[in-house]
Amino acid sequence: MVPVITLLTDFGTADGFVAAMKGVIATRARGAVIVDATHDIPPQDVRAGAFALLGYASYFPAGTIHVAVVDPGVGSARRAIAVEAGGRWFVGPDNGLFTGIYDREPGWRAWQLTEDRFFEHPVSATFHGRDVFAPVAAALANGVAPAELGAQIEDPVRLAWAAVRVDPERIRGEVIHVDRFGNLVTNVSRRDAGEEGLPPDVRISVAGRRIGGLMSTFAEATGVEPFALWGSAGLLEIAVAGGSAAMTLAAGRGSEVTIDFPSR
Amino acid sequence: MVPVITLLTDFGTADGFVAAMKGVIATRARGAVIVDATHDIPPQDVRAGAFALLGYASYFPAGTIHVAVVDPGVGSARRAIAVEAGGRWFVGPDNGLFTGIYDREPGWRAWQLTEDRFFEHPVSATFHGRDVFAPVAAALANGVAPAELGAQIEDPVRLAWAAVRVDPERIRGEVIHVDRFGNLVTNVSRRDAGEEGLPPDVRISVAGRRIGGLMSTFAEATGVEPFALWGSAGLLEIAVAGGSAAMTLAAGRGSEVTIDFPSR
Amino acid sequence: MVPVITLLTDFGTADGFVAAMKGVIATRARGAVIVDATHDIPPQDVRAGAFALLGYASYFPAGTIHVAVVDPGVGSARRAIAVEAGGRWFVGPDNGLFTGIYDREPGWRAWQLTEDRFFEHPVSATFHGRDVFAPVAAALANGVAPAELGAQIEDPVRLAWAAVRVDPERIRGEVIHVDRFGNLVTNVSRRDAGEEGLPPDVRISVAGRRIGGLMSTFAEATGVEPFALWGSAGLLEIAVAGGSAAMTLAAGRGSEVTIDFPSR
Repeated sequence: MVPVITLLTDFGTADGFVAAMKGVIATRARGAVIVDATHDIPPQDVRAGAFALLGYASYFPAGTIHVAVVDPGVGSARRAIAVEAGGRWFVGPDNGLFTGIYDREPGWRAWQLTEDRFFEHPVSATFHGRDVFAPVAAALANGVAPAELGAQIEDPVRLAWAAVRVDPERIRGEVIHVDRFGNLVTNVSRRDAGEEGLPPDVRISVAGRRIGGLMSTFAEATGVEPFALWGSAGLLEIAVAGGSAAMTLAAGRGSEVTIDFPSR
Repeated sequence: MVPVITLLTDFGTADGFVAAMKGVIATRARGAVIVDATHDIPPQDVRAGAFALLGYASYFPAGTIHVAVVDPGVGSARRAIAVEAGGRWFVGPDNGLFTGIYDREPGWRAWQLTEDRFFEHPVSATFHGRDVFAPVAAALANGVAPAELGAQIEDPVRLAWAAVRVDPERIRGEVIHVDRFGNLVTNVSRRDAGEEGLPPDVRISVAGRRIGGLMSTFAEATGVEPFALWGSAGLLEIAVAGGSAAMTLAAGRGSEVTIDFPSR
Repeated sequence: MVPVITLLTDFGTADGFVAAMKGVIATRARGAVIVDATHDIPPQDVRAGAFALLGYASYFPAGTIHVAVVDPGVGSARRAIAVEAGGRWFVGPDNGLFTGIYDREPGWRAWQLTEDRFFEHPVSATFHGRDVFAPVAAALANGVAPAELGAQIEDPVRLAWAAVRVDPERIRGEVIHVDRFGNLVTNVSRRDAGEEGLPPDVRISVAGRRIGGLMSTFAEATGVEPFALWGSAGLLEIAVAGGSAAMTLAAGRGSEVTIDFPSR
């Protein structure tokens, strides 16, 4: 099978950085299929990168190599790593970008990238996307075994995700992502809601403001009142019909979400 | 032949939605070539999506599968459809995105997508790009016959395009698109101008303001005065040398354009 | 080998222009791999395009065809050209986009594109990306010899790059690019700095303001003071830890950079 290599960065494309990464891959792994995941992660926003990655990683076929470079610590002592999880590869800086992958795939294994014979030389101090991560992805596409890349590690960096607190009468969570449409994605999952799901008389508040109830689809809602629905990632989202919940509620990442059950 | 699948969305790329669609296609139709058309259609702007699609669809080879997802009605009763027209496929919501295709290819045929064995499960209420349209595109790439996807329909939704009114001494049209450079694309075509084309003494007004005459190229124009020229889609465009006609004229989609022929 | 065709434009993607170019290539050179370099060059900014191209062109494999279209003179008498340099191809308008390539690869050869049997017809006056450059790139991918495309030329247009002035006690250069992170890329190269490199007591000023010294990596720096480092293109860059040097220094393309050596 032709290997697929996806790229996620916070580089934008205007500077040619992404194109240089693609050139390195095209040269070293002729035939590998390069797929742009996104280059529009907000600059240096590791959390946003980790969230986006989690939304697409498992939809790709087994053997896919996901490169992710949001790397404020480039050139520092932060490690470079390759991770095998769920039959797919992840290559990037060890700064928490893969936190969600570790959570989802308990059998993950990780290696520190130290064997510089797989790197592009000279290795710059500022652009490991081109000099370390792209060539290592190409090496994996070419069948290099991970143990050749460096020693296995057990303690990759994990982001501290906000925890959901589930009490009998209340669930407390928070907004973890705002999407392009202004929808507020929370960390409250269907599992948190319990087997019965959210009852009809549920009361939901965001950033201290009471919003409308739970809808099944965007289209069901009318009017300007924000409402909740289960989003495509299985997480509770807050939306406004034809508008932006983020603007309507002046809410964003970190805003508190409370879900009360009067009838329980 | 390896099938080509193009993607047009209003998703941007930062959230990972587009990458999830690519993953579904890469998994289900290994070997299909995925081409990004655009992900920068303004959010929920079906007209802008329809216009962009019309500009590239027919340049792709026969058999190409064009996926287009600008879908404000996702989750509602709006139909999901696949269309065959001019030897190419179109897959997306039935909301008028393919209006220009029906006009251009009178032999089009359309099918409603109801056979959910071709979908990605569970089918979310909010992301049919990933769960319906991408997997159906993959099915078509794999040679599934359209009749397997659902029943044929005769009445897909069409946008009401603005009509051009052609009188002996005057053509009245309107701006239907503003491009990245601020050029105003009108709905007036070379055919509307007649066999002789526009005469040298033609008088053109946009949003009530008289502009300069007809030029052959951008480079021919000098000065700050807006002028007209025949654009790459065969439609009359209004431009400003090295500037933005949209800003200079404070005009945009829907602005009236009148063309008078004093000598006729 | 499957040929690789890269695309650099200032078109953005929302209008469908880039997609039309891809369609032309997909139709005429089935099997060629199309790689998006960037479509986010600032509109009509030939210098920015030339700079970006220089950052990735040589990372691609021999035989790659780099198409670059930033073309304010489209439709004028400006020539259309194909250039062979360093085993790779460059196709675009003759307006200086390839200046850096001529400098880097002294053995370059260039041909004017006049044989319109290789073009897409009708050739529009405003969109040579689709009608001239994309089909010519496809022709090269199909093995057409450059001499078939038109006559060889010896005098392609070159941009006047800002020169670096190296004196015994001072180097004077300027900012030639501001990247997405706000880093100021200067035209001062490691070669300008001499074999010993920059000494520890070097004094660097940007736009008349003294900044901090030379760091090895972004991560080494702390605080809000701008500092210098050697960037991934081998050029001196000015950066601010976790911030934008362009904003901190109110500097941009053309800002003066001076490097003084008190101890020399």
